[in-house]
Amino acid sequence: MRLKNNPKAPEIVKNSKYVSEKPSFENKNPICLEIGMGKGDFIINMAIKYPNINFIGVEKYASVLMQAVKKIENLELPNLKLMLLDASVINEVFNKQIDTLYLNFSDPWPKKRHAKRRLTSENFLKKYENIFIGNPHIIFKTDNRKLFEYSIASLSNYGYKLTDVSLDLHAEEIDNIETEYEKKFASKGAVIYRLEAFLYKNFTVNK
Amino acid sequence: MRLKNNPKAPEIVKNSKYVSEKPSFENKNPICLEIGMGKGDFIINMAIKYPNINFIGVEKYASVLMQAVKKIENLELPNLKLMLLDASVINEVFNKQIDTLYLNFSDPWPKKRHAKRRLTSENFLKKYENIFIGNPHIIFKTDNRKLFEYSIASLSNYGYKLTDVSLDLHAEEIDNIETEYEKKFASKGAVIYRLEAFLYKNFTVNK
Repeated sequence: MRLKNNPKAPEIVKNSKYVSEKPSFENKNPICLEIGMGKGDFIINMAIKYPNINFIGVEKYASVLMQAVKKIENLELPNLKLMLLDASVINEVFNKQIDTLYLNFSDPWPKKRHAKRRLTSENFLKKYENIFIGNPHIIFKTDNRKLFEYSIASLSNYGYKLTDVSLDLHAEEIDNIETEYEKKFASKGAVIYRLEAFLYKNFTVNK
Repeated sequence: MRLKNNPKAPEIVKNSKYVSEKPSFENKNPICLEIGMGKGDFIINMAIKYPNINFIGVEKYASVLMQAVKKIENLELPNLKLMLLDASVINEVFNKQIDTLYLNFSDPWPKKRHAKRRLTSENFLKKYENIFIGNPHIIFKTDNRKLFEYSIASLSNYGYKLTDVSLDLHAEEIDNIETEYEKKFASKGAVIYRLEAFLYKNFTVNK
């Protein structure tokens, strides 16, 4: 997601109490990460709803991250940290800290030659390997059919086991915290897809 | 699929030149199997289109299989065999013969206590293991969202790698031979789901 460039955005973001370069928390609660948090509705509402879980939101564009920062400047959410960061360096910033990774409405990069940029590509799945404290666990939502089809294949071919697959999330009666994008497009009738994926390490299949 | 019981059906089926108890072919061409072939449009049209591949269709109900038999009695399709058989004994009839297994619009068995009866359940995936001559390869189509969601999870948890996933098959420009059921429901606007699944044996994941 891009917004019109705001020259004040980097300064506003940098000065926010929520934003840091090396996020850490003063407790040992599990840490959930969202890559591509956009304007922040999902990660902010998760942090409000689950005070005993720590949340880190990562966003590439300062002008977008600024929108999230503005929403929470008058709140006290000690379990929420935000970062201005490109996903491609995620493995240089995190090392065995993350419990669950959320990918919500990631850029579909529809052209085949851009497949490596998709956040569920093998390229990124490799980068995620060492950010997790335990077995890798990804929760993925999108309204982009092609990206979801691609992600099912990419995750399963990497070795992930898929579970809680929904091909019409908003038809289910389940707990679902929406992103800004999701609210807008689901209200227009878009189908929302969701899955969870677990990578069980050091297992052997000998059938 | 059930039809009104026809007392003549078992006799008509038994006398068909296409029906046998132990199907074999007089060549070494690959053999594809469809479990739950219904009235046969898919397997018959596949056999017509691909004369260098052998096809076996399996159906539980004589009254249904009779419908398929009637369609082809005036044709010569040496690469097609049909069987009156319940899927639950598939592993007793086949042993290292099958190249690809087709499951088309299988009964969704929507109640959780009937999950074991779904043709993509672990219960059946185990039965399929020894019917394949090489690595297990399943091609699955359905219009039942819940069954497709379940099948993605069930197959990936069993160790299958998923590929060529389509969440709207009829929106794609690909070669697709339809079943009777598919023609009827797709024309009414039902979304058709499809995937392929491969089980690579004797591999080790040590990440």
